Amino acid sequence: MPGNTFGTLFRIHTFGESHGPAIGVVIDGCPAGLAIDEAFIQAELDRRRPGQSAIVTQRQEADKAHILSGVFEGRSTGMPIAIVIYNEDARSKDYSHIADKYRPSHADFTYDVKYGHRDYRGGGRSSARETAARVAAGAIAKCWLAEQGVRIHAWVSQVGEVKLEHPWEDLDMSFTETNPVRCPHPETAARMEALIREVRKAGDTVGGVVSAVAIGVPAGWGEPVFDKLHAELGKAILSINACKGFEYGSGFEGAYMRGSQHNDTFYRDAERRIRTRTNYSGGVQGGISNGMDIYFRAAFKPVATIVPAQESVNNAGEVAVVEGRGRHDPCVLPRAVPIVEAMTALVLADMGLRARLARI
Amino acid sequence: MPGNTFGTLFRIHTFGESHGPAIGVVIDGCPAGLAIDEAFIQAELDRRRPGQSAIVTQRQEADKAHILSGVFEGRSTGMPIAIVIYNEDARSKDYSHIADKYRPSHADFTYDVKYGHRDYRGGGRSSARETAARVAAGAIAKCWLAEQGVRIHAWVSQVGEVKLEHPWEDLDMSFTETNPVRCPHPETAARMEALIREVRKAGDTVGGVVSAVAIGVPAGWGEPVFDKLHAELGKAILSINACKGFEYGSGFEGAYMRGSQHNDTFYRDAERRIRTRTNYSGGVQGGISNGMDIYFRAAFKPVATIVPAQESVNNAGEVAVVEGRGRHDPCVLPRAVPIVEAMTALVLADMGLRARLARI
Amino acid sequence: MPGNTFGTLFRIHTFGESHGPAIGVVIDGCPAGLAIDEAFIQAELDRRRPGQSAIVTQRQEADKAHILSGVFEGRSTGMPIAIVIYNEDARSKDYSHIADKYRPSHADFTYDVKYGHRDYRGGGRSSARETAARVAAGAIAKCWLAEQGVRIHAWVSQVGEVKLEHPWEDLDMSFTETNPVRCPHPETAARMEALIREVRKAGDTVGGVVSAVAIGVPAGWGEPVFDKLHAELGKAILSINACKGFEYGSGFEGAYMRGSQHNDTFYRDAERRIRTRTNYSGGVQGGISNGMDIYFRAAFKPVATIVPAQESVNNAGEVAVVEGRGRHDPCVLPRAVPIVEAMTALVLADMGLRARLARI
Amino acid sequence: MPGNTFGTLFRIHTFGESHGPAIGVVIDGCPAGLAIDEAFIQAELDRRRPGQSAIVTQRQEADKAHILSGVFEGRSTGMPIAIVIYNEDARSKDYSHIADKYRPSHADFTYDVKYGHRDYRGGGRSSARETAARVAAGAIAKCWLAEQGVRIHAWVSQVGEVKLEHPWEDLDMSFTETNPVRCPHPETAARMEALIREVRKAGDTVGGVVSAVAIGVPAGWGEPVFDKLHAELGKAILSINACKGFEYGSGFEGAYMRGSQHNDTFYRDAERRIRTRTNYSGGVQGGISNGMDIYFRAAFKPVATIVPAQESVNNAGEVAVVEGRGRHDPCVLPRAVPIVEAMTALVLADMGLRARLARI
Repeated sequence: MPGNTFGTLFRIHTFGESHGPAIGVVIDGCPAGLAIDEAFIQAELDRRRPGQSAIVTQRQEADKAHILSGVFEGRSTGMPIAIVIYNEDARSKDYSHIADKYRPSHADFTYDVKYGHRDYRGGGRSSARETAARVAAGAIAKCWLAEQGVRIHAWVSQVGEVKLEHPWEDLDMSFTETNPVRCPHPETAARMEALIREVRKAGDTVGGVVSAVAIGVPAGWGEPVFDKLHAELGKAILSINACKGFEYGSGFEGAYMRGSQHNDTFYRDAERRIRTRTNYSGGVQGGISNGMDIYFRAAFKPVATIVPAQESVNNAGEVAVVEGRGRHDPCVLPRAVPIVEAMTALVLADMGLRARLARI
Repeated sequence: MPGNTFGTLFRIHTFGESHGPAIGVVIDGCPAGLAIDEAFIQAELDRRRPGQSAIVTQRQEADKAHILSGVFEGRSTGMPIAIVIYNEDARSKDYSHIADKYRPSHADFTYDVKYGHRDYRGGGRSSARETAARVAAGAIAKCWLAEQGVRIHAWVSQVGEVKLEHPWEDLDMSFTETNPVRCPHPETAARMEALIREVRKAGDTVGGVVSAVAIGVPAGWGEPVFDKLHAELGKAILSINACKGFEYGSGFEGAYMRGSQHNDTFYRDAERRIRTRTNYSGGVQGGISNGMDIYFRAAFKPVATIVPAQESVNNAGEVAVVEGRGRHDPCVLPRAVPIVEAMTALVLADMGLRARLARI
Repeated sequence: MPGNTFGTLFRIHTFGESHGPAIGVVIDGCPAGLAIDEAFIQAELDRRRPGQSAIVTQRQEADKAHILSGVFEGRSTGMPIAIVIYNEDARSKDYSHIADKYRPSHADFTYDVKYGHRDYRGGGRSSARETAARVAAGAIAKCWLAEQGVRIHAWVSQVGEVKLEHPWEDLDMSFTETNPVRCPHPETAARMEALIREVRKAGDTVGGVVSAVAIGVPAGWGEPVFDKLHAELGKAILSINACKGFEYGSGFEGAYMRGSQHNDTFYRDAERRIRTRTNYSGGVQGGISNGMDIYFRAAFKPVATIVPAQESVNNAGEVAVVEGRGRHDPCVLPRAVPIVEAMTALVLADMGLRARLARI
Repeated sequence: MPGNTFGTLFRIHTFGESHGPAIGVVIDGCPAGLAIDEAFIQAELDRRRPGQSAIVTQRQEADKAHILSGVFEGRSTGMPIAIVIYNEDARSKDYSHIADKYRPSHADFTYDVKYGHRDYRGGGRSSARETAARVAAGAIAKCWLAEQGVRIHAWVSQVGEVKLEHPWEDLDMSFTETNPVRCPHPETAARMEALIREVRKAGDTVGGVVSAVAIGVPAGWGEPVFDKLHAELGKAILSINACKGFEYGSGFEGAYMRGSQHNDTFYRDAERRIRTRTNYSGGVQGGISNGMDIYFRAAFKPVATIVPAQESVNNAGEVAVVEGRGRHDPCVLPRAVPIVEAMTALVLADMGLRARLARI
């Protein structure tokens, strides 16, 4: 069974290669009657698109979304919504020099072993360009979630050794989009940006962490056993290019803790809602949301494309040298923010629909 | 769509509650002709079962697997393999005192909100007892994987503040099963065990980390985009009760690194196989195995059931006090090891079958 | 992907062989809070079970349903409902004489070619015994449907050349269960029964037709394009052993008609409901129910097991002679009635749940 | 779960409305390395397209296929193959007069009830225009099947009361494409064509039957229990617009037969292959192909759009009169032939891939 589909009820199928005619997505399962805000879809794509600032790749792509189906008179019809983004700046010549070489820590070697026949132009389907389709679909999921009172924020909380140490509850998320790094703490953002510039100057790249929170998720979303809310979130986030780790709630810190310390005791608040005094659970208990904020962190490795020459082999197994010539990001983190939000939105929309089936 | 199914081609459906008549699993998609070693299935269940040592729950369950279908004359027939484990020590009375109370950091509240009607005996389906079904199924996946030359080892690498700092390549895995903690480093194991005993004495619980490695996975397993090998692994592991985080390869450490440092350069070894000099990729590139060892770490929170009284509410929203009376584990880690292995085996078997479809 | 699962949201997984320890089903997706009537499940199984009358197979099976999970205090919990039926009268010796021979028009040859390794006892999984699991699951689907006001009737409308020519609207369905053939027209039932007795005496078997109607299905159930309500019904019914054809509404007669004759014009009835004057559409338009009665017919071939010797080959490709010795039905139709109803119920319950997702 | 996906391993997702910007399909699961013959895809679409002869609708659509992904240097890459067909002759004004009326025996009413919000232009997604996407995808399935030695023929065997009575084995399929009706018997074709012209003159429409055969399917394709080869074929064919019935092998005639007559006895032919002397099984036994020809028949109702005024209601429930003004087919049968072939190809390709998983 192919791996280009995500979700069960709110479901997307993506397609397209970095340097083919287009990339795109079919969203199947969006309920009828939803107002589809095309300007918002475009705005989300603009947050992800290359060339948006000095610290991301300079490939020129307008990433203009074309809706081909499923929307009539501004609202979803319940039919599949197909969105196509045509590739514009697809300079295939840039990549001919690596057609037969395996770039270290890219997918060139594994695709070749698996499929025998590979579109090597810009990484083909393994390129992070594929994630634009996710962002377009995520924008529609966000429209539906907004109607349920759910909102999602992601931000860069670490670039290399520069970490944002403040608890997320203390941050003002309105700062996130005010700087090219997408860190809501301006002073830390400046240090992160300086580091990215320095790394880029060296022809190198650097990793980091994106943090995220979903606010307003009603209690009761998520499924028992395998499709736990946090397990689906984990898969969603780990499927983003370059992601190496996922933790939610207490995460890896929870390994150090005692039960008496980690347990989130229940109480009733002034509005008589059942709440927990702490939230080490990260808003999810037994795989199902409990109405508290859902928060998580995702680690990203440094981008694999670097300028210095690297040892490698070619598809004949001969020794080869790979040099980075394509346009690339020195740090994937700033552009990862909207992608993390999109994947989170897709999981939550799916779980929101699944929750409709729980009772007779 | 219900969440009790895992896998796409090698697929399992589990069922059963902690204190109902039985738990079980239907394995659908196991190819015909596989030798099914019932003693091995039982041995795997014995590694997970309660009462196996002094540092785990003392609930008495033989966890005897009964195969109801799909095996004929010792071999799989390609038909669904149903395995049932009858519950024996199901003292429902133990749980009547919490029938209407929400135990902190359990799934009581979320199940009630979602379903309205809940089997509260021992947590019902949210009990970790459910994982016995996973272990039985995982044993069959391991049988198939063994025929492909794949083997999987998991072990406890952290309990609370006691960490195993040795690189895993230096460990002798044959020590893992020689101590009740399942840590392959005897001296560290002893310190972990001491900590667990101390915590138990205090009526408390403690978290930790399981590490795992899959050796011998051929290059070419895993799917592009959403169903990346590590994303499916992440979901599988995160779906285990109490798991809070998953990282593979460089993981969260990768966030600190530079591309020039993190990239795994290619070379050809003496047997003319393409290998990488380092393995920060954790054996997976672009979501597809590259033939190197696949390794990952999983964080587990402390068990939620503790002895001291805790503040809570009941299902009428009234203030309530919860006290731990049921038999429970002071530390889930030792019993998590076979579960982590089982989930890893299920993902790999599924990916191994999916890899058969890559080429004409 | 294995073929032992049916349905998408109201979903069943079946397992088990004719002469193994048990057959069974896991029902996943039944909403929580449904009253589960165990006596009704058993009554449905009794309608299908062998030995119920003189004109069906004399194999002795109580077909007692054991619920292993998913039901607590008489109601569904939203968790998987596992039902097991242990095989009692599994005389494996009956079948040793055909272990290596391919019985004509059975699945012996095709299973051997496909799987290499086959449970030949009584046809193994290809035995119609498998359908008991469907009937048990269908009973639960019927419970849910009853709450939606939907009821399903099936009956035998043809046995060999004996046909019930009356329009179904004129029949009194309360007669269906009053005769062993399950034909609601007593006089025709008597002729059908006589034919079955005659055929059995000759050691032969005979085919026939089951007709069915679903009354009270609300408008709006069914999905566009591939999962049209009638397409899912067709698959469901065609998957029953021995089924050779399916038609709904006007069916094959519709091929002779003109549009001006076949079109079902709309009007509003006294209760201001939109209805159609005729119902050649069979209650489904564009794959979605329109609130009219859904009706269809299903053709069944004669049972393949007959007494006279038949030419065949064995698994070494040598000429062989097959003689019918096992206990078998002279006519599958009477026992097909509850199976057709069960499959119809499973499709409708699934579509009823899917309909919850159509709108924001 | 949405209904716009067909298949499990060779899987398609379709999208698009009759009068939106485009229709299209994403084919996911086509193995890598397959030569993709774009001219063949176009030729298949040309067999289905409107305006191809005097007896089909005169809507003008070039139905030009644009491949957006998944093909590189003429061969499939294993990645999703997206194909888009832009709508050209989408005169929306033609449909404004029926925007609020329910055309008899169309999907207008059922879509409105289900979704509330509907693209009424030309039937939107319920239009048979959707089937162009199936034909494009089916062409790729045919490419893969041709490599396995499988070929598929469909033809018109009945139009209204004009039936082709010859056994299909006696027909010369090369005549099928020599006449606009697609009946391989020229004399019968002429009578069918005359009937269609007569019906069209009267502003009416007429139903009919498509027959089909798949030759060269290896023994062992198809799955036990629910996903039987003929059950999947039945669903596939019944999902085509206007299809009312499906029968395979002996079909409804089998209901009249005795087992002694219907059973297909086995023998070994001169090439030592196991064959059956008759083929009432239609090439499928126990849901799995046995190597004999697979044949079936599908009934189609008359097209619902007719010229004479018809009684109806509008979406306010008021009495309305519907007149046929759009361009439409007097008989859907000639254009149904390539659609039936496409759906057959999609089922067989899927089953061919699934068969790879049967054994260790």
